[in-house]
Amino acid sequence: MGSNVKAIVCHDTHANGGWKMENVDVREPGEGELLVEMVASGVCHTDALIGGLPGGAAPIAFYPRVLGHEGSGYVKSVGSGVTVAKPGDPVLLSFAFCGNCEICKAGHHSHCNDFNELNFGGPHKIFGLASKSGEHEIGGAFFGQSSFAALSIVKQCSVVNAKDLVRNKKELQLFAPLGCGIQTGSGTVINAAQATEKDVIVIMGLGGVGLSAIMGAKIVGCRTIIGLDRIESRLKLATELGATHVIDGSKLGDKSIGDAVRELTDGIGPSITIDTSGAPALTKAGIEFTRNRGKIIQVGSSPFDFNLDINVFSFMVSGKQFIGAVEGQAYPPEFVPKMVQWYREGKFPIDKLTKFMPADDFEQGLKEMHDGTTIKPILCWS
Amino acid sequence: MGSNVKAIVCHDTHANGGWKMENVDVREPGEGELLVEMVASGVCHTDALIGGLPGGAAPIAFYPRVLGHEGSGYVKSVGSGVTVAKPGDPVLLSFAFCGNCEICKAGHHSHCNDFNELNFGGPHKIFGLASKSGEHEIGGAFFGQSSFAALSIVKQCSVVNAKDLVRNKKELQLFAPLGCGIQTGSGTVINAAQATEKDVIVIMGLGGVGLSAIMGAKIVGCRTIIGLDRIESRLKLATELGATHVIDGSKLGDKSIGDAVRELTDGIGPSITIDTSGAPALTKAGIEFTRNRGKIIQVGSSPFDFNLDINVFSFMVSGKQFIGAVEGQAYPPEFVPKMVQWYREGKFPIDKLTKFMPADDFEQGLKEMHDGTTIKPILCWS
Repeated sequence: MGSNVKAIVCHDTHANGGWKMENVDVREPGEGELLVEMVASGVCHTDALIGGLPGGAAPIAFYPRVLGHEGSGYVKSVGSGVTVAKPGDPVLLSFAFCGNCEICKAGHHSHCNDFNELNFGGPHKIFGLASKSGEHEIGGAFFGQSSFAALSIVKQCSVVNAKDLVRNKKELQLFAPLGCGIQTGSGTVINAAQATEKDVIVIMGLGGVGLSAIMGAKIVGCRTIIGLDRIESRLKLATELGATHVIDGSKLGDKSIGDAVRELTDGIGPSITIDTSGAPALTKAGIEFTRNRGKIIQVGSSPFDFNLDINVFSFMVSGKQFIGAVEGQAYPPEFVPKMVQWYREGKFPIDKLTKFMPADDFEQGLKEMHDGTTIKPILCWS
Repeated sequence: MGSNVKAIVCHDTHANGGWKMENVDVREPGEGELLVEMVASGVCHTDALIGGLPGGAAPIAFYPRVLGHEGSGYVKSVGSGVTVAKPGDPVLLSFAFCGNCEICKAGHHSHCNDFNELNFGGPHKIFGLASKSGEHEIGGAFFGQSSFAALSIVKQCSVVNAKDLVRNKKELQLFAPLGCGIQTGSGTVINAAQATEKDVIVIMGLGGVGLSAIMGAKIVGCRTIIGLDRIESRLKLATELGATHVIDGSKLGDKSIGDAVRELTDGIGPSITIDTSGAPALTKAGIEFTRNRGKIIQVGSSPFDFNLDINVFSFMVSGKQFIGAVEGQAYPPEFVPKMVQWYREGKFPIDKLTKFMPADDFEQGLKEMHDGTTIKPILCWS
């Protein structure tokens, strides 16, 4: 079907040098699947997280596989039962969900009962090394898409048809990360926190998710928007994007994070705290410094074995809320067009976060994302 | 002022036999205070909890004091600056709040920054033994009211003027518990959980709070209402009040609570879980069995040293919410009239929960509340 196209195949963890750009074949799309020629894929910390797990460490840790979950491209062909797009349509890709469980039926697709299996599970053999013709032994369907490939099989549920949304290929590339990191940040503020102009919000961790949360808070008009990170360039960008205050976690000295936050929030803490970092110390601090009746929203992936201790009596009296959220609790077919609209209105300058690079430079992209030089690398496949 | 009236004075814990009906004098009302002749006071587990703490075990544990926080009565006189009621008005009493902090100003009075101090703190010397004239060494102002007394000083913030709400003294007595236990149960469903007819709700612990939550869920029209307790008479009453299913926790055998709940909820658990018991095992079970995107609301007082372990990654992916709530997150001047209206419409049969008894029989009331014979004892002062 798709012969001899490039893909980043993970044979082992990234730390072990297991990620390799290779030529692969792609099987034909089956029922409810589309064959998509990728033009771009954003790089996200979740790619690094999953492709950093030793094989067998968890049911979701297996190799070989193709990661990538912020893809965009053009439909090349479709399997039976596909109605979301037809060949030639530009598409933006997002997470997968079943659509049939009670949670999906209630409109909460990002917390689908089968979310783990559909987005991380597998192997869903889709790719094969071009050198071994006819064998498809390499796992795909990561977030229903595995977009670290010039050509991939995508599940219908992961597709947002972009034919009325994008004007050209360049825009299709720029919008690739809308389907995960950017939706997660802005959606958390808008859907999960239901922030309003009355809110005082603290956003911890200013990568792609955190900075998108800053933009979301600015759109909502939160009266105080505080960004926290340890990298100066990110703090500067947060201010450009709407943060009213920033806290440099590397320069607190003897001061606790809670004290630094209280100094900026009339002594009582924020009404909303979002942790995008997954750092246990930040989650704990957020539970403590958030004001009574405030919301603490966990968005960043904590170490799998991190258990938070909550003193139940104090928590009860405080009226606080601890909330888990993934993908900004967004329904992509509705939320992606909303983000595109904000971008056109100049309220959502995602181009300040992104850097295009050829897919062959993925190692450089990962490096820049980790050291903070680049917020959101976008790998271009064509 | 108020000479030689009866009050339940706690000189020590109840277990130590420290609660005694005695004759006391009451000081004059100061600024923002009312002198109220009680007609009734509901008995609540929080009275037993606070009056069961060894003196000095916590800043809120001190003696001698007068407890009671579900009072109703008639205003006898008022101090300066009181506008809520005038002498002769019937009043229903609720919790105290400052009204000035950011939390109160945002309408979240039940999580006032000074809630602990204003409701549990002290000593706020208000009463004196009638036998020692002129000395007021006994603490009052419990929940702003200390209504286990025939006459007490009440803070203006704790007063709901009932002159347009009640028709006679008997009703004033019946409505006494609206200001705490009954408001807590129904308010949690309506305000904190914001339940709708789409919700499947589990209510754990069917004392006054839990049964009021059942009534609240019935009013909202939750499609499944499950009550859990270990006392058969309470389960029966829950069914009468609107529970569609009940679980007898004493008859589970080898089955876990989660399994029992899942059997009644299409295998996926409820969308809302309310724990009114404060039993750590139930809170833990609720976190586990509640469905994705569901709310677990802590209403019952856990042991002060109970810390809940939450695995943060799993909680994040689940999209669940753990919420603390006291007093049903209600604003009594608005919520108490609402409950009275439901009662008049026949939707809120609080008289099925209550049992009137002379205040002198308080020991019997406590006993019946603890063994489950009576859900809500109401001590009558006149």
